[in-house]
Amino acid sequence: MRRVVKTGAKREMERPQPQLRKWSDFLPALAWARDYGWAAFAGDATAAVIVTIMLIPQSLAYAMLAGLPPEIGLYASILPLVAYALFGTSRTLAVGPVAIISLMTATAAGSVAAQGSSEYLTAAILLAALSGLMLFIMGVLRLGFLANFLSHPVIAGFIASSAVLIAVGQIRHLLGISAGGQTLQSMLASLFRELGSVNWATAAIGLFSLVALVLARRYLKTVLLHMGMASRAADSIARSGPVFVVIAATIAVAGLGLKAKGVAVVGAIPAGLPPLGFPALDPDLVLRLALPAFMISLVGFVESVSVAQTLAAKRRQRIEPNQELIGLGVSNLASALSSGFPVTGGFARSVVNFGAGAETPAAGAFAAAGIALATVYLTPYLADLPQATLAATIIVAVLSLVDFSVLKRTWSYSKADFAAMAATMPVTLAVGVEQGILAGVALSLALFLYRTSRPHMAIVGLVPGTQHFRNIRRYDVLTSVKVLTLRIDESLYFANSRYLEDRVTELVAERPGLRHLILMCSAINAIDASALESLEEINRRLADAGVTLHLSEVKGPVMDRLARTSFLKDLTGKVFRSQYDAVAALDPALLGPAAHAAVTAESR
Amino acid sequence: MRRVVKTGAKREMERPQPQLRKWSDFLPALAWARDYGWAAFAGDATAAVIVTIMLIPQSLAYAMLAGLPPEIGLYASILPLVAYALFGTSRTLAVGPVAIISLMTATAAGSVAAQGSSEYLTAAILLAALSGLMLFIMGVLRLGFLANFLSHPVIAGFIASSAVLIAVGQIRHLLGISAGGQTLQSMLASLFRELGSVNWATAAIGLFSLVALVLARRYLKTVLLHMGMASRAADSIARSGPVFVVIAATIAVAGLGLKAKGVAVVGAIPAGLPPLGFPALDPDLVLRLALPAFMISLVGFVESVSVAQTLAAKRRQRIEPNQELIGLGVSNLASALSSGFPVTGGFARSVVNFGAGAETPAAGAFAAAGIALATVYLTPYLADLPQATLAATIIVAVLSLVDFSVLKRTWSYSKADFAAMAATMPVTLAVGVEQGILAGVALSLALFLYRTSRPHMAIVGLVPGTQHFRNIRRYDVLTSVKVLTLRIDESLYFANSRYLEDRVTELVAERPGLRHLILMCSAINAIDASALESLEEINRRLADAGVTLHLSEVKGPVMDRLARTSFLKDLTGKVFRSQYDAVAALDPALLGPAAHAAVTAESR
Repeated sequence: MRRVVKTGAKREMERPQPQLRKWSDFLPALAWARDYGWAAFAGDATAAVIVTIMLIPQSLAYAMLAGLPPEIGLYASILPLVAYALFGTSRTLAVGPVAIISLMTATAAGSVAAQGSSEYLTAAILLAALSGLMLFIMGVLRLGFLANFLSHPVIAGFIASSAVLIAVGQIRHLLGISAGGQTLQSMLASLFRELGSVNWATAAIGLFSLVALVLARRYLKTVLLHMGMASRAADSIARSGPVFVVIAATIAVAGLGLKAKGVAVVGAIPAGLPPLGFPALDPDLVLRLALPAFMISLVGFVESVSVAQTLAAKRRQRIEPNQELIGLGVSNLASALSSGFPVTGGFARSVVNFGAGAETPAAGAFAAAGIALATVYLTPYLADLPQATLAATIIVAVLSLVDFSVLKRTWSYSKADFAAMAATMPVTLAVGVEQGILAGVALSLALFLYRTSRPHMAIVGLVPGTQHFRNIRRYDVLTSVKVLTLRIDESLYFANSRYLEDRVTELVAERPGLRHLILMCSAINAIDASALESLEEINRRLADAGVTLHLSEVKGPVMDRLARTSFLKDLTGKVFRSQYDAVAALDPALLGPAAHAAVTAESR
Repeated sequence: MRRVVKTGAKREMERPQPQLRKWSDFLPALAWARDYGWAAFAGDATAAVIVTIMLIPQSLAYAMLAGLPPEIGLYASILPLVAYALFGTSRTLAVGPVAIISLMTATAAGSVAAQGSSEYLTAAILLAALSGLMLFIMGVLRLGFLANFLSHPVIAGFIASSAVLIAVGQIRHLLGISAGGQTLQSMLASLFRELGSVNWATAAIGLFSLVALVLARRYLKTVLLHMGMASRAADSIARSGPVFVVIAATIAVAGLGLKAKGVAVVGAIPAGLPPLGFPALDPDLVLRLALPAFMISLVGFVESVSVAQTLAAKRRQRIEPNQELIGLGVSNLASALSSGFPVTGGFARSVVNFGAGAETPAAGAFAAAGIALATVYLTPYLADLPQATLAATIIVAVLSLVDFSVLKRTWSYSKADFAAMAATMPVTLAVGVEQGILAGVALSLALFLYRTSRPHMAIVGLVPGTQHFRNIRRYDVLTSVKVLTLRIDESLYFANSRYLEDRVTELVAERPGLRHLILMCSAINAIDASALESLEEINRRLADAGVTLHLSEVKGPVMDRLARTSFLKDLTGKVFRSQYDAVAALDPALLGPAAHAAVTAESR
């Protein structure tokens, strides 16, 4: 126990601003690199190996989901990891291509060019560049809070519906048919049209992979544990289950010569490291991709930060959201530089990285090296990997993102939040991913403003025998005919100040005998200029009506502001430190003789 | 003093909804008409006479300001008054053409047709019809709160800059030159170009009127009082000073034959009542006028309601904002029906009406009759009324609306509010009136969201010898090494929930010795689904870090909601009724032996 003495550093307390002073704030790598040792290396290296094995199929799969050549997925998993290792603040986040961002990339690029065309690839790379630039600038300007306007229900609704879009979109690869469509209805329509031309060999591989993956996810860990494997190792292996399925499927295709049976495979991947160089900035294209890029930035940032924070907390570490923006920004710029597509911190791979014992971001750099080696030496062996298997891995991965129970929970907790979620999902499914987010954000903001514009107010009375005041509708309390106390449970600002005027006018009009009105301000955290004018107006009107206006339990910061105005001077009544003092002064009879004596004594 | 027993009508208390059940709620006239007597009639009649005398020049002036023929102003002052008398809830509000709305009408109509053209007149009438329809619908749907999103600073800035636009726009009539322009810069430019062609006779009349009006406004009442006139009468006559100036100017023009000298006059006004009939609804025109009409509705409603409420309060009467929407809506529909332009409750005339002893809305109906008579019998005498005099009355009227002191006051009180005001004024002056309002509203909403997204939080400690907890930065308080209390001074919602996560992670990371974190919720009025998830996340993360999470002083409504979730079950710590109980339970040592004893006793 210690005494804290009053300091002048009040502002800093009220608006905590991490000051950027040390070099390591700009380049967090400096911090951990200084005391990097063999112990850390050991952890990082093992983690890197497992993550690399896991990333290879993922990279190929998400490239396919984004409608891009497989190598692009590998490219997007090299430099970005290094960049994040240098600029990111999370010790264990693993960046790279992720499902939702890949879908958003496909939608955005598809809106300006045809899949497979070189313009489509340019668009995807440009998206990475733009989103990288936006993230970086947001970080420098400390605009991380912008992401907070994506409410959890909107994100949940968006992720669930995107997952459905992704899963449905992969069915064509799973069955070896050529279907298209961006929205759910168009996808389903074209799927049904093509259903006749299913390639059974592909379907067999696809369904086998699907079943194998589900089983692996469900039971592999338990099996390994029964075989006496250490929990952590079992977990990591179970999570990299897809790899075994991929290997099995590839061998099957090669061995049984299924390519001849029309099974689509990844095909020849150009071996070697990605070519470096930025995409040409066609201003018109930039303009058309700006909004999608911004959406990709926000969604990617939100996903990444929540993963990073969850993992950091487990080891009492911290991440600095605004520096995270810079880290992810540089990663995406690095992705664009190496002709990759938008990346962000992924949940599954970060958990594996953490679980496999990664100590520092170096693990990410090592994984990058692993992928680099793969692009140089492993690509020939990936040629026979069937797309159906990749589709299966995508479907299993994204369906784990769908959680419809959140719908029920949100409905029972808050109708407003449910409305925002309910608005996001159909729009995302039927219109588009960007429109879905925009609809959700707009509606959640509108509902928030509506709620605060009609604040909860309660007439309160004295709980007999106490100094507490409670809502007369909830408690059996003492009230007075000449003194009315209204507790306002909201900060007062322009959207609700007139509502307060109405309520007060109404209350006073109903009570001819009223002499004093007390506004209990214990829950008022701010009073803006409009609300101040309303209070002045209320004060004037009550004066005309012969009623005195008092305030009680006004907070420090609010009082500081009021003190700068003439309101306190013009106020017909007083400002009481506590509601009890107010009643004691205005209607002592209410307190009963004993209480009355006590109070007068106290105020002496 | 009475006991209030707990009732079930909780909802009604929390969201007061005036139930529409009685006929008189739809048609307030039924309420006062029932017991209408001679006393009321006497008051209403006198008020009506004075208001009529005042309304005639005003109607002509505001028609001129709106760029419409003079008779339109008179038409807009007949049926609308009757309509409001039937549907309005204010006893003393006087509706009709007002300055700002006339300016907005001129801008809107000018954007679709040339002044003086029949299309221009149609547009003005259509604006009245649309705005009437919108107001009526908003009233039926109880959307009155929408007007609250025009914050006081935005309105103040808008009115001040509109007044400047209006005043500058009238200078051409004052000097008898032909200048144009919609924005300040274009008006000034064209004024300077035309400055050479001033008509001196007009300028003489104009400046005479201006001086006379200013003197009347300043000194007439005092003079009348010295002459021993009753204060109320003196006030009314002083306020109708413009009438005398108008009469004098008209006689001068007629007597000195100034028309020959090129003094522009009102000219021949078609005698007789307005033709009835609705304007043709050209869908394209409707679309182009929809936004301006909406703006006119909001601004008119805000102006009217604040006047009505001020006057109602003086007699402990009430107005019902949503019924006011209906009243103003029907008035504007009536205006359109009688080929008038948008109207609303005016400040000056309502004050005169009130001061002259109006008892019921019947006064308005009588005034309407007065104007009707004027349109039938008085128009010949108005032909020689010089436009320069009308311009002078407009300038004097609007300049009383400009109050630059509000700039200083707002600046010193709240920079955010000042920013909103500062954004409104230049945009209104340099770009346009609608853009001005939109800019102000957008900025004030953005700033409000920004503020609530970074709530004030304070680490609190115990004020020695009390049960109060205060900000450690403001007070000399006791704190504990193992127990940390964070007071959150804002409702928790999606925009600030992640900010809370960051702060908590930060605080815990800084304090290795920490065992318990208490969130003091006394100022939290709502927790939305996003914030709930953040709290669950914080609870999980703190558990991982070996810190227990507790809540204290959670409000009833908030607790009710939390009780519907699994959060309270999963919470690692407890929910304490008071912060003092929390500390007493978690670190009794902090309270000292005496206090400790007291608390344990209390909790027995």
